[in-house]
Amino acid sequence: QQICAGAGSTVKVGVRLTTNPKGLWRKFGILPEKLAQFWERAQECTNLRFQGLQFHTSWNLSPAAQIDFIRHLGQVLSGLPSAALDQIRFIDIGGGYWPPQGEWLQAAGTSVGKLKMNLGQDPGAPHEHYRLPSCAIEVFAGQISDAVRECIHSVVPCRICVEPGRWLCNDAMHLLLSVVDKKEDDLVITDAGTNAVGWERFETDYFPVINLSRPALEEKPCHILGSLCTPHDVWGYAYWGEEIRIGDILMVPTQGAYTYSLRQHFIKPLPQVIIL
Amino acid sequence: QQICAGAGSTVKVGVRLTTNPKGLWRKFGILPEKLAQFWERAQECTNLRFQGLQFHTSWNLSPAAQIDFIRHLGQVLSGLPSAALDQIRFIDIGGGYWPPQGEWLQAAGTSVGKLKMNLGQDPGAPHEHYRLPSCAIEVFAGQISDAVRECIHSVVPCRICVEPGRWLCNDAMHLLLSVVDKKEDDLVITDAGTNAVGWERFETDYFPVINLSRPALEEKPCHILGSLCTPHDVWGYAYWGEEIRIGDILMVPTQGAYTYSLRQHFIKPLPQVIIL
Repeated sequence: QQICAGAGSTVKVGVRLTTNPKGLWRKFGILPEKLAQFWERAQECTNLRFQGLQFHTSWNLSPAAQIDFIRHLGQVLSGLPSAALDQIRFIDIGGGYWPPQGEWLQAAGTSVGKLKMNLGQDPGAPHEHYRLPSCAIEVFAGQISDAVRECIHSVVPCRICVEPGRWLCNDAMHLLLSVVDKKEDDLVITDAGTNAVGWERFETDYFPVINLSRPALEEKPCHILGSLCTPHDVWGYAYWGEEIRIGDILMVPTQGAYTYSLRQHFIKPLPQVIIL
Repeated sequence: QQICAGAGSTVKVGVRLTTNPKGLWRKFGILPEKLAQFWERAQECTNLRFQGLQFHTSWNLSPAAQIDFIRHLGQVLSGLPSAALDQIRFIDIGGGYWPPQGEWLQAAGTSVGKLKMNLGQDPGAPHEHYRLPSCAIEVFAGQISDAVRECIHSVVPCRICVEPGRWLCNDAMHLLLSVVDKKEDDLVITDAGTNAVGWERFETDYFPVINLSRPALEEKPCHILGSLCTPHDVWGYAYWGEEIRIGDILMVPTQGAYTYSLRQHFIKPLPQVIIL
């Protein structure tokens, strides 16, 4: 308000709502219960024009968390003065819509595997993978639409926005690596390191390592490691292929979300990005 | 060898030794037991001049792991032909020498805390910190020297190198943050996010957050969070100071190792680096 008043201009504003008042998620937004109070304050700010709401429940393998919050929000909205409701032009249902292939984990990424590691045991065999199923985007769309119709549009006939960033990005980028050394029958080193994705993703998340040079519908145990000077520089513990040799081209598919944006200039140069 | 032969030049080479033949560490180096074999191959490479050895045991809170490997290496060396020993000009004892303040952990970084989290419980109170003690650098120097004298120099009178990078860097950089918002009495937001260090360090590692603007020898519980759109953007769960307000300058000390080199261009601009 101060900045706008100083510049003699007016801006449209929205406010984020807190979906979880406990733990680290409470840093985001204001509690829905404080919306009436927020609106009153916003009315006093003559250079701000309150227009809408946003919330984000994250990591949505199904629309359950979003629907729960939509129901809660509907109740809160129905208690607001009609002057406040008249100002709400949009509600943004945030992101975290999971890709349809689900969340795939290494044994070390599961709660049983973590528990075993905590007790000093191996988390599980390297070729064991675990899938947490997710819903198709049509299921998200259908169920969220039903909830919006019932709980939101019955109170406020506003525009609904969504942010399916992860869903869009996930399948849009794939990593290509070359095998530069084969130190043992079950240990190869690649040219790139996991600084290309900026975190030690593949110790807990499973993605297939596909040997494009010698394809086969069979997965073989093998440590597929990068060339950084850290032992956490892991692509996977197995590859899909007939065998694996120096010079082979490997693909780690569906690396579009939270990788390119987190990459690190660390020891190895960043891989080239080719847009097809 | 091929490259050097092609260029008509000769290069001095050393070889890294594997300190742990199991798990992800096995990617580094060759087994000490294969050193004789390696030396024979190196002799055949007329453009390479074998000169030395390196090993790295990492995360050394005490010199125990380094000394164990030095003893093992002494035995291996005493079995090598004297022609091989004559070529060894240096042995490099790698890095990972821990700073003297020890390793400080949040409850979530301890094995008990991890186990509790695995069982769905809180890892521990936010103001509980845990210290794994480490040795002074003089203790490392003294004990490693004794082991080298006894096990290495009795066989090979070579130069000894060390890589105390973490020890040198750790205390050489500190982070300064400003408080930009105080959302609750026990929740503040800072201008910088943890992309400045490139990993979610402070969820498991403890470093004091020192309020330079209102100093006090008392630590008060408060979520100190960055301004990224991730809930893992945590600096700490408490601060040292009388109180905390918008505009206060906070210091997170001793952030020199594995931070600057891992930082990420992610959402927020990277902080300026000032060399004093």
